[in-house]
Amino acid sequence: MQTNCSVYIATSLDGFIAKPDGDVNWLHDPGYTIEGEDFGYNAFMKSIDALIMGRLTFDKVLSFGEWHYKKPVIVLSKKRRVIPAHLMGKVRFMDGEPPEILEKASKQGFNHLYIDGGKTIQQFLNAGLIDKLIITIIPVLLGEGVPLFGKLKADLKLELLSSSKFGNGFTTLTYKPIYQETS
Amino acid sequence: MQTNCSVYIATSLDGFIAKPDGDVNWLHDPGYTIEGEDFGYNAFMKSIDALIMGRLTFDKVLSFGEWHYKKPVIVLSKKRRVIPAHLMGKVRFMDGEPPEILEKASKQGFNHLYIDGGKTIQQFLNAGLIDKLIITIIPVLLGEGVPLFGKLKADLKLELLSSSKFGNGFTTLTYKPIYQETS
Repeated sequence: MQTNCSVYIATSLDGFIAKPDGDVNWLHDPGYTIEGEDFGYNAFMKSIDALIMGRLTFDKVLSFGEWHYKKPVIVLSKKRRVIPAHLMGKVRFMDGEPPEILEKASKQGFNHLYIDGGKTIQQFLNAGLIDKLIITIIPVLLGEGVPLFGKLKADLKLELLSSSKFGNGFTTLTYKPIYQETS
Repeated sequence: MQTNCSVYIATSLDGFIAKPDGDVNWLHDPGYTIEGEDFGYNAFMKSIDALIMGRLTFDKVLSFGEWHYKKPVIVLSKKRRVIPAHLMGKVRFMDGEPPEILEKASKQGFNHLYIDGGKTIQQFLNAGLIDKLIITIIPVLLGEGVPLFGKLKADLKLELLSSSKFGNGFTTLTYKPIYQETS
């Protein structure tokens, strides 16, 4: 079965997904709220089978307190960790290179995966495994922080699939990476 | 007379305006050409009175050979340099902090200025002097290069004025910075 990996993430115009200390409160500015508008989040979440995130992102999500994911979450971690009681059956740990992870996920019936967190996104991009990037550009410059993108083995061209503009100044750009055949 | 400063620039999706060595050939990929489409460049150039750029950008432009600017170019440089004969009357050097530069430019009759080059844009943004950012996002990830944006004194919120999508995957986003009053 073919797996598909998508990214759905918000970034400042200068390319940061969090402040240097991991803070994402700037995303939740009351001025950004549009009654009844979720910027495609629920439709996207319905379309996926599971999330894959790194340990840093997982720890960040845990720090929010309430667990709000209805879909299974795969946490990439070299160390097998104890799963908190309230997350039994919701969270599983995996270790390995991106292709192995996808194989394991597929065997567990997860074929459309939401790849989350800067480091994990970069790792899967470099492995040529991201099929769709859905990026919402927040109308703010942060100056510094945790970057969405990082170094690549080579330039990576993208195909723009769609763009949406929202009344609060958000712009959602959807791209498909065009991986070059390497032999 | 009130001066206005605008930025009109292309950036990779990961925020680079040039490769690490200053190369901008990736912008001129034949696949990006759309017959009869200039992505708003000529209309923008008609609207400005002069360009302001740093020395690095000026040297880059000189390296292209042909001089294609019809509008006067102000080069920011601490050292007074010899102006090449073929650019007499087309290029002038100025030195000073952004507010001084704008005052000098205004006295010379230049009121709508095109601020160009990463460092110069960052300097004018930090001085609260950029009125409009017209940013064309090229559908490519470069991984590394010369960044469009840099550190800021504080977060800078932006108002999205418009967005345009082109058939080659370019997206032009126009923002107005919302500077906070500081006392």
